[in-house]
Amino acid sequence: MPRLAIKLEYCGKSFSGSQMQRAGVRTVQSELERCLGIFFRTGGLRIPVTLSGRTDAGVHADGQIAHFDIQESAVIASGLAPELSVDQLQRMCWALNGILAQDLSITSAKVAADRFHARYSAYRRTYVYRILNRPQRSALEHGQSCFVPAIIDVVSMQRASTAVIGTHDFSAFKSSNTDTTDCVCTVERSELLSLGEGKLEFWISADHFVYNMVRIIVGTLLDIGLGKRPETALSEALASKDRQQAGPTAPARGLCLKAVDYPTEFNYFAGEPVRTPDLLKKSGDLES
Amino acid sequence: MPRLAIKLEYCGKSFSGSQMQRAGVRTVQSELERCLGIFFRTGGLRIPVTLSGRTDAGVHADGQIAHFDIQESAVIASGLAPELSVDQLQRMCWALNGILAQDLSITSAKVAADRFHARYSAYRRTYVYRILNRPQRSALEHGQSCFVPAIIDVVSMQRASTAVIGTHDFSAFKSSNTDTTDCVCTVERSELLSLGEGKLEFWISADHFVYNMVRIIVGTLLDIGLGKRPETALSEALASKDRQQAGPTAPARGLCLKAVDYPTEFNYFAGEPVRTPDLLKKSGDLES
Repeated sequence: MPRLAIKLEYCGKSFSGSQMQRAGVRTVQSELERCLGIFFRTGGLRIPVTLSGRTDAGVHADGQIAHFDIQESAVIASGLAPELSVDQLQRMCWALNGILAQDLSITSAKVAADRFHARYSAYRRTYVYRILNRPQRSALEHGQSCFVPAIIDVVSMQRASTAVIGTHDFSAFKSSNTDTTDCVCTVERSELLSLGEGKLEFWISADHFVYNMVRIIVGTLLDIGLGKRPETALSEALASKDRQQAGPTAPARGLCLKAVDYPTEFNYFAGEPVRTPDLLKKSGDLES
Repeated sequence: MPRLAIKLEYCGKSFSGSQMQRAGVRTVQSELERCLGIFFRTGGLRIPVTLSGRTDAGVHADGQIAHFDIQESAVIASGLAPELSVDQLQRMCWALNGILAQDLSITSAKVAADRFHARYSAYRRTYVYRILNRPQRSALEHGQSCFVPAIIDVVSMQRASTAVIGTHDFSAFKSSNTDTTDCVCTVERSELLSLGEGKLEFWISADHFVYNMVRIIVGTLLDIGLGKRPETALSEALASKDRQQAGPTAPARGLCLKAVDYPTEFNYFAGEPVRTPDLLKKSGDLES
């Protein structure tokens, strides 16, 4: 029974998050499972899908990874050739993208090893949080960035942002709605880029994240930028391990899951077109 | 009676173009005029607005300019101080952006000279046409770019794109649905940028444009990229002055009005944050 790995892009506005919930609630997983069932002619049955990790309602992704298993009989029933060549998989994506709603798309699919697991094989996730800092709201970016009309000190936020790099206990940046116990995360990158026109992007990569971690870090950085907290607030909150010492949770709409990284043996989407943080960094440099 | 100049951003998806049509048809102009009437307490009357030029249904803008006149009594009725300071105008924009739907926003407002006319004072317009050239559609860019899944020869398109620079008769690039007679336009810039990840942007600046000109130029360039026409097709179509010799009209959703330029005396939005073609060009260069 072949295992397939797929790469997903979605606009989180009209989804109640990524994970399956009760019937009638529209989530990324439920939409995917339903459409896979249609394509593979399961007679109304969903095909279970495992995502690399949960994203909340309103959070976007263009590098979410998932896996699912498919019986050879279903492959044949779908009209695909059983060898699942690159061409066949591209045709499968086209067909699925024709069934899925416009706010969800499968941007790539590969045959994966049976041992590959979208969640447990991942060793790094990268998120970007977009802030639009200008006097008036944007009609074109509606729902895809966090609009901040007040004047903020971007340089202070940039200096503060590096405090979370390294291995730390992120208890202070964990939503109180969760009882996850493993709060020790290793952050490889934490950087605020200024792209001009008031467009800011906060990039963060870590082995894993505690619940709401990126949004609470951004909320703390925004408080620093707004002068509500000192530049040392992020490192102080981190050291305190106390949620009360960190800032508010920034809105979901600014957040986007950009990439999930796997060991070389499972690196199915290497060389796929992704907007790399390095290119962005150079673009940002042009501005300064 | 003060004249105000405003800068507009809109997502064209849900508008039947920019210009007022019959009652019940949602256009940028009708929405604006209605909301200005609400803000300035005209008792249900619209406040007439003049746009720099027409954009079709589905076409976006983030640099559209418009002007309108407002009686001093209406300014006072709205609660603004009659001197219309920078701060007062920012507050007016906030209030209007609170009334307008999310797909339309006023990004800036300035007091303009009585002689200023959003359409007739303009000496240059800049458009960008976005193409997404990758195997699968994008969920996040839905409706904001033209998706081209086939392999295209970008370098051929880039070489061909410069043919329209200069002063030419653009009869071949005029929609047959119009009887505009002045087909001579001066194009200052015509350039296709490759931004990576399959993202292409065609930037064009001219003193004016004939109806559907940008979309027909892009349609011709795409035919060249797809190998349906030779690299010389754009210059040949231009010389022919025959609409039949040019390519198809590319879809509206890829097009965005980026900037309208005025002489120095009317340069109300100079220094406003705009994504400049020069910065983009440098970003593009990083890729190549």
